[in-house]
Amino acid sequence: MLPLLVEHVAAARERLPEAVFRYFAGGSGDELSLGEAADAWRSYRLLPHVLRDVRRVDLTTRLLGEVYVSPVGVAPSGFQGLAHPDGELASGGAAGAAGHPFVLSTRSSHRLEAVAAAVGGPWWFQVYVMRDRSLTEALVRRAAAAGARALVLTGDTPVVGRKRHLTGTRIDLPDDAFLVNLAEHMGERPDRAAAEQDPGVTLEYVGRLAEVSGLPVLVKGVLRADDALACLDAGAAGVVVSTHGGRQLDRALPSALALPAVARAVGERGTVLVDGGIGDGLDCLVALALGADAVLLGRPVVWALAAGGREAVGGALAAVHDDLAHAMALAGAASLGAVDDSLVARPHG
Amino acid sequence: MLPLLVEHVAAARERLPEAVFRYFAGGSGDELSLGEAADAWRSYRLLPHVLRDVRRVDLTTRLLGEVYVSPVGVAPSGFQGLAHPDGELASGGAAGAAGHPFVLSTRSSHRLEAVAAAVGGPWWFQVYVMRDRSLTEALVRRAAAAGARALVLTGDTPVVGRKRHLTGTRIDLPDDAFLVNLAEHMGERPDRAAAEQDPGVTLEYVGRLAEVSGLPVLVKGVLRADDALACLDAGAAGVVVSTHGGRQLDRALPSALALPAVARAVGERGTVLVDGGIGDGLDCLVALALGADAVLLGRPVVWALAAGGREAVGGALAAVHDDLAHAMALAGAASLGAVDDSLVARPHG
Amino acid sequence: MLPLLVEHVAAARERLPEAVFRYFAGGSGDELSLGEAADAWRSYRLLPHVLRDVRRVDLTTRLLGEVYVSPVGVAPSGFQGLAHPDGELASGGAAGAAGHPFVLSTRSSHRLEAVAAAVGGPWWFQVYVMRDRSLTEALVRRAAAAGARALVLTGDTPVVGRKRHLTGTRIDLPDDAFLVNLAEHMGERPDRAAAEQDPGVTLEYVGRLAEVSGLPVLVKGVLRADDALACLDAGAAGVVVSTHGGRQLDRALPSALALPAVARAVGERGTVLVDGGIGDGLDCLVALALGADAVLLGRPVVWALAAGGREAVGGALAAVHDDLAHAMALAGAASLGAVDDSLVARPHG
Amino acid sequence: MLPLLVEHVAAARERLPEAVFRYFAGGSGDELSLGEAADAWRSYRLLPHVLRDVRRVDLTTRLLGEVYVSPVGVAPSGFQGLAHPDGELASGGAAGAAGHPFVLSTRSSHRLEAVAAAVGGPWWFQVYVMRDRSLTEALVRRAAAAGARALVLTGDTPVVGRKRHLTGTRIDLPDDAFLVNLAEHMGERPDRAAAEQDPGVTLEYVGRLAEVSGLPVLVKGVLRADDALACLDAGAAGVVVSTHGGRQLDRALPSALALPAVARAVGERGTVLVDGGIGDGLDCLVALALGADAVLLGRPVVWALAAGGREAVGGALAAVHDDLAHAMALAGAASLGAVDDSLVARPHG
Repeated sequence: MLPLLVEHVAAARERLPEAVFRYFAGGSGDELSLGEAADAWRSYRLLPHVLRDVRRVDLTTRLLGEVYVSPVGVAPSGFQGLAHPDGELASGGAAGAAGHPFVLSTRSSHRLEAVAAAVGGPWWFQVYVMRDRSLTEALVRRAAAAGARALVLTGDTPVVGRKRHLTGTRIDLPDDAFLVNLAEHMGERPDRAAAEQDPGVTLEYVGRLAEVSGLPVLVKGVLRADDALACLDAGAAGVVVSTHGGRQLDRALPSALALPAVARAVGERGTVLVDGGIGDGLDCLVALALGADAVLLGRPVVWALAAGGREAVGGALAAVHDDLAHAMALAGAASLGAVDDSLVARPHG
Repeated sequence: MLPLLVEHVAAARERLPEAVFRYFAGGSGDELSLGEAADAWRSYRLLPHVLRDVRRVDLTTRLLGEVYVSPVGVAPSGFQGLAHPDGELASGGAAGAAGHPFVLSTRSSHRLEAVAAAVGGPWWFQVYVMRDRSLTEALVRRAAAAGARALVLTGDTPVVGRKRHLTGTRIDLPDDAFLVNLAEHMGERPDRAAAEQDPGVTLEYVGRLAEVSGLPVLVKGVLRADDALACLDAGAAGVVVSTHGGRQLDRALPSALALPAVARAVGERGTVLVDGGIGDGLDCLVALALGADAVLLGRPVVWALAAGGREAVGGALAAVHDDLAHAMALAGAASLGAVDDSLVARPHG
Repeated sequence: MLPLLVEHVAAARERLPEAVFRYFAGGSGDELSLGEAADAWRSYRLLPHVLRDVRRVDLTTRLLGEVYVSPVGVAPSGFQGLAHPDGELASGGAAGAAGHPFVLSTRSSHRLEAVAAAVGGPWWFQVYVMRDRSLTEALVRRAAAAGARALVLTGDTPVVGRKRHLTGTRIDLPDDAFLVNLAEHMGERPDRAAAEQDPGVTLEYVGRLAEVSGLPVLVKGVLRADDALACLDAGAAGVVVSTHGGRQLDRALPSALALPAVARAVGERGTVLVDGGIGDGLDCLVALALGADAVLLGRPVVWALAAGGREAVGGALAAVHDDLAHAMALAGAASLGAVDDSLVARPHG
Repeated sequence: MLPLLVEHVAAARERLPEAVFRYFAGGSGDELSLGEAADAWRSYRLLPHVLRDVRRVDLTTRLLGEVYVSPVGVAPSGFQGLAHPDGELASGGAAGAAGHPFVLSTRSSHRLEAVAAAVGGPWWFQVYVMRDRSLTEALVRRAAAAGARALVLTGDTPVVGRKRHLTGTRIDLPDDAFLVNLAEHMGERPDRAAAEQDPGVTLEYVGRLAEVSGLPVLVKGVLRADDALACLDAGAAGVVVSTHGGRQLDRALPSALALPAVARAVGERGTVLVDGGIGDGLDCLVALALGADAVLLGRPVVWALAAGGREAVGGALAAVHDDLAHAMALAGAASLGAVDDSLVARPHG
């Protein structure tokens, strides 16, 4: 992990209430997935080229019709207001100002319209399918109206993973924190159950979401090639390979090991993003070489927020972006098009 | 291992005499098999599905013509009276009340008829083939008469594995504890040698046992595909993949690694169960994905017995069952029929 | 390692002068081979059979026309007089009395005729090819006359491996200790250089040794299939797979990993023995399953000698033999003919 | 690592200013490559031959038309004057006197003509392509005039790897240390930027260098078979497999793992050298068996310089050479021609 990111973790640990730090830091079950995500990226070795012209390393990234300065984006972590009062206004602002992809969580601590304004450029909206689907549909229409360019449908959370490390802790979350984006759609006596994730949602709903919102839909949490293809067949524009930060099914195949088969299956038919355990430019380079179109940072953004708000988020994104550019230069790859799977090997099994 | 099960181990360690704790806890030889059984399950990774309808996760399990609420059952540990006075009455009662499979050991601390009554539903009887086969045959006839629905013939104990950790310890076992179920068949001057396991028993005896008892016979301790087929050919209804809790041949291939080949070989021809090192729902999910029809818990039941008798056993079974249901929901598998080997991979060798 | 063997090591460490203990205990170079020999056996897993008739487990072993009670024999460690005054008289006597194979080192601390008498049955003679080949030839003729049934030609010691751990130590070896078996062939003013190993000896000499001695010749130190075949083609009756106790080429492929290819290549054409790191019956069972006809114990015999002379050597051999018989019973193999490579797997790479 | 080399490290750590020690010792990024280079050599196992004539082990090495006494040479570490005042005069002198290959760094602390005189035999010149190519070309012409027999073009350093361990340290390098070999080509007001490495240099420049200098060119830093072939096609006489001492792209495939594919691709078309993590004769033997024509020592030469100047460098080179000869004798290989890839295996993955 880049030294700056390590500093952010340390600062977050110091500044955040312990329960909040643990809320963001922890995973489900035995936290086996949580613990091995980063190591999985580091299990790859790089096979750089020599003597290539790398005077200019171009990280320009085209995703779903938009152009970004970098393939390093922000993952949709919820409740960023717990990390910093500015929350998603700060993370979105930092990402947008520098041209990084930004995915806003449904569980944003700020209204999506405000965040959209803070980003000031393209952004995507993450969504759960709620038991009351009219809530979901109202929300995605609103997101589209506010300028979201894509939806990220979280597919790996039919039920919520059990976080043993949270047993006995309690986060002081204002009662309406959960409802920042939902309250206006829920009537005077909000029924929180209606806003819970619906464990009955199926692939068919992908098409419905696309239709309702008029936006491309990426399915997040895909770890299997067959699922990726099924998502595309159901109308998805792509997938996000993810183990949900090690917070859902423990022992899920790490993103770094699941990515190659998913990316090969998707090929040119769709967009493939990945998150989980990425901490420097070498991790990014491995992900891109294995077929990802972009990578998303989750906890690093949260820790940066806690450590220094928008400026620190910008610093973290820039540091990873810059480290990736440096790694690409050392690998003899002057553009993302030159990054292919011949750059990586996994010799230790 | 689930936190509740860890608590049970701690309570058992505190409450049981040291020699008894060590009797149940230990393995044979260098205890290499004992030590790696759980890790072998954890060496698999899961490839969950996204966006499947998992509103209802159905664990209904059909085994040898009976329907159980759960594929999580009780393995035939002997001498459960050492762990709790109620012994098998408690473990069998807990399993039966909740609809879990239950296998009673020949070396039960309570008469099999009493345990049958405590279970109050289907149960299976584990049997060794004794030097005096008339003893074995009398016993299995009695078990059948008492309502056993199947026999589990232990096949991996022609001689008893050497437990170095028991050297120098002595368990205060009443002289007749060994004979609770056998005494009435052994005459006035019981010859314990007659009740020892016969190292000369061969596969042919499987058919004889089935014939004598009128019950389906599973062979326990099978780790090889060819043995599994030979058992079926000899008249077995299936096998239990097991290393006998690491108490027989040390360095035996762990159940978790032996299971796939055995299950593939058996296919639809018979029933495959597995035990050894299973401590939570993820282990169960891996076992089911690798082809097991059900899993059996050995030591976890003993520790629960010691920790809190019948109630604790019920709690342990429910916790594992519930964790399995949760894992299946997260994996997108709403029924056991949806659990196949595409859900697992073993990427680290 | 069997507890008894561990006790012997501890006793040897206590009783022997440190330099002597280190002389026997150490290896060459970084001692990487020394350290991994035992682990290599333990990297295999066993796939036992169930329900086989193992009332009698027969370890009768036929080697080069002789019948032994056991496939567990004594490797040719030199200078056993350093471990115990009775040296090879004790180890040979213990092996011979119980019917174990015994290989006497050229560098025996006792005259070969005396050892032959102590063995009282078949034994083999280990030989280096010396610079003055007439010495070698006189010696092997004498060994044959004294009743040796085979020669074991050490092939892995063209030069002596460097034992860093011996730097700065000095063993008080009487000047003629080296020459116990050679003195009478070397004239009045012995030239020790003449008795050094000849780095120029080649495979052709195998046939010469067989011719001179009239005995079958095994080549010791073979780790490659092609070398094994070349030895047979040169007239050898078989090979001993060995890394010389980790005392010659460090990082040599461990015996346990080299054995399968060598045994497959040799097949029925010759005899295959193996040594290095064997410490219990499970190691032996793995070796036999991988194709060895017998196994040899080196250091365990030396430590037993130091711990308790002939009686302790007998105890060590019996303990390993008995542990092998027990393991075979648990594996469902009633004779060496039933031990095949289906009994072993190496699932962890 | 050979004990003598370990002593040199300890002496260097004691004698050198901490910043200088860290300058030479450190690597880039997380120093993952730095840390695993040596282990990668040690992950191979050796399969020695028995009974080969090894009375004379011949290490005579022919490289690019010159004959050397040994395949163990000196890698082009820069600024050796920081380690010892005599710097490259000492290391080159030691190598030349004993007949080892010697590669002089462009960033030598002494003028190349003086070093050439100190070597007194064939030597090679390492070169970066500078932004001002006339500088590079003047330099290589001068090297050729001074007797260099080959150029080693560093290809893995289009930009400089980030050495986190150097953050906050400062080496007292005289202002002109960088320019010892360049000053006379740079005019009165030297522009250091002109002497920086040009990130735009491509394979085409290999031919240009060969033409300008009239010397064969090896490209250093090649880890891929396709790059190796591309270098040959561009006019290179061969490659040096290298991760630049773990100082450039962290997580690059270790030299020991990259070498086999590169050597196979190059075959007889060119020369293959290798460096990185080599610390004894066994490492060298593995490298030669995997297809290297020679190996280069980087840090071991620097530490020897610091420990004892020219004499210590000579001692280090002799120790590694001698250990290789010893290992070859034990492996039954009497000449480099007998060292092939059947001597190595990598059984642990």
